[in-house]
Amino acid sequence: MTEAELSALAIGALEGLGLSRADAERTAWVLVMGDLMGHATHGVLRLESYGDRIRRGAIDPRARPSVERVAPALARVDGRGAIGPLVGRVALDEAIAGARACGIGAAFVRNGNHFGAIGPYCWLAAQDGFATIIGSNASVTVAPTGGREERIGNNPLAIGVPHPGGDPVILDMAMSVAARGKIRAAAKKGQSIPDTWATDREGRPTTDPKAALEGFLMPFGGYKGYGLAVMVDLFAGVLAGSGYLTHVKSWLDEPDAPGNLGHFFIALDCARLGSAEWLADRVDDFAGILHATERADPAVAVRLPGESEMQKLARHRREGIEIDAEVLATLQRFAARG
Amino acid sequence: MTEAELSALAIGALEGLGLSRADAERTAWVLVMGDLMGHATHGVLRLESYGDRIRRGAIDPRARPSVERVAPALARVDGRGAIGPLVGRVALDEAIAGARACGIGAAFVRNGNHFGAIGPYCWLAAQDGFATIIGSNASVTVAPTGGREERIGNNPLAIGVPHPGGDPVILDMAMSVAARGKIRAAAKKGQSIPDTWATDREGRPTTDPKAALEGFLMPFGGYKGYGLAVMVDLFAGVLAGSGYLTHVKSWLDEPDAPGNLGHFFIALDCARLGSAEWLADRVDDFAGILHATERADPAVAVRLPGESEMQKLARHRREGIEIDAEVLATLQRFAARG
Repeated sequence: MTEAELSALAIGALEGLGLSRADAERTAWVLVMGDLMGHATHGVLRLESYGDRIRRGAIDPRARPSVERVAPALARVDGRGAIGPLVGRVALDEAIAGARACGIGAAFVRNGNHFGAIGPYCWLAAQDGFATIIGSNASVTVAPTGGREERIGNNPLAIGVPHPGGDPVILDMAMSVAARGKIRAAAKKGQSIPDTWATDREGRPTTDPKAALEGFLMPFGGYKGYGLAVMVDLFAGVLAGSGYLTHVKSWLDEPDAPGNLGHFFIALDCARLGSAEWLADRVDDFAGILHATERADPAVAVRLPGESEMQKLARHRREGIEIDAEVLATLQRFAARG
Repeated sequence: MTEAELSALAIGALEGLGLSRADAERTAWVLVMGDLMGHATHGVLRLESYGDRIRRGAIDPRARPSVERVAPALARVDGRGAIGPLVGRVALDEAIAGARACGIGAAFVRNGNHFGAIGPYCWLAAQDGFATIIGSNASVTVAPTGGREERIGNNPLAIGVPHPGGDPVILDMAMSVAARGKIRAAAKKGQSIPDTWATDREGRPTTDPKAALEGFLMPFGGYKGYGLAVMVDLFAGVLAGSGYLTHVKSWLDEPDAPGNLGHFFIALDCARLGSAEWLADRVDDFAGILHATERADPAVAVRLPGESEMQKLARHRREGIEIDAEVLATLQRFAARG
């Protein structure tokens, strides 16, 4: 289906779930971009769990995030338990407003929910020339280094830099070796997983995705990945005045409770540092140097972060995108309520 | 020796190298803190290479970094090839000044040099209640994922969060599995290294530190560590208007050329988000949750990033610190010139 068709369906589904048209449009944009960039686990598939949580009262489809500007470049956002991507869009706007006024700006978000993939927020900011550093905490799924129980989320972090006239460079990663969504997808398809992704409940590495979902995720790169997860949670949870670590509620274990997730958004106005032409030339040169690296495997290119996502985005916009039939049926069911 | 003795010696050595008293004090503070926090490879040991580069004219001991405030919260700093830690101190002050005025502030630095460990800058900012995100590029030592030649630096990144009344939480890491300084130290001591740290010139994993110094470092966590190195360089090099990737000069390969390193400093005024008591309580609770994690090995505690460094800092301040005799001799030799 085309991007326009998918967007219309997602907007309709969100209206069916009780969102206003305007909120449904802003929310759907994030999820559809997730699919277009190749993150199907963070795309419109999420509407199923969002809808479930709305039905249980854990997400309020009519809530509007509130904003308190505590300094010229700094805002606190209370998500008020609204649907996650809507909270994310409000916070991104606040961070950008701070950056427009002061060069750099930030928004710290409490009482948020799962807000989709982060890459789309970085992409959106980059269209207007803003670099971004964005992070979120998440319900606990990862064991701290040296521990044998989950006490920290996989806490995604994304960093984006605009490339005027070209594709922005966007690193969007979680702190586990693999995202929990990938394990859930493997479980759904009955596939096994690499034994480096997760352990079972007893802390033993496993290739069984179901056992892995009962166990905990391994941080990438050992204590460095764990350390990054800690710092993201200190910013997104502790400093934001939101839940952190075990205070964040899991939508699987406590589907009736507000998630109380926290996020942070930092935006930088690149135009204050140089012209668009200056930046375009520099990013071109930067990318050229990396692309020209002698390859380990002549058939496999050296790439920049987000390059494959940007290629998928272009292809999906050109050729349309295939959405899982079951996911489509869920969207159509929600939309029919509207 | 005591911290005061080491500081006096380092200040004397820097004055002997041609720095003013005030600049020597600010510079020495960073290096001595590096030693006290346990990063001997980034402590006063560096004065040998700094001195060598001053002698060759690649570092100007009398240069003063210049500051251009391009927006209320954003400054561009031209390091003018001054000694690295002095440039770092000036940039940190500018980022904090922006944060004081606007809630969050940043400084982007060009024409810098190796500026010591980053942890000390995060620690200093945390004393006044500022959280920090600080990064630097470095001369190329790491192979991009999929590549078999070094085209990117190990680009250290540090993130710090204050803990009023306690030790700040500071993650300070490079993007390689191990720092090049550790391999250099192993080579000096004639020790072998794990085969996961680096490859030789041909791209083959090696346990020989000398072969590793001829080859290239492996990024931690595969493409995620590589991706972080790219993003740090896009901020520290590309956006800062400094050298990046292969444009950064190596003090080993081109000791006569200014390094042209770039850095970025982001500071956040935590007081705008809540009181010191509020933050202290939250960080206490956060640390308590992680410390209480069931241990994989009962004898090994689960720790927060920087916790061992903070323990070393306290111990070294209490009991004094032992500095390598050869390093001390170098400092005394420099100091005798003053």
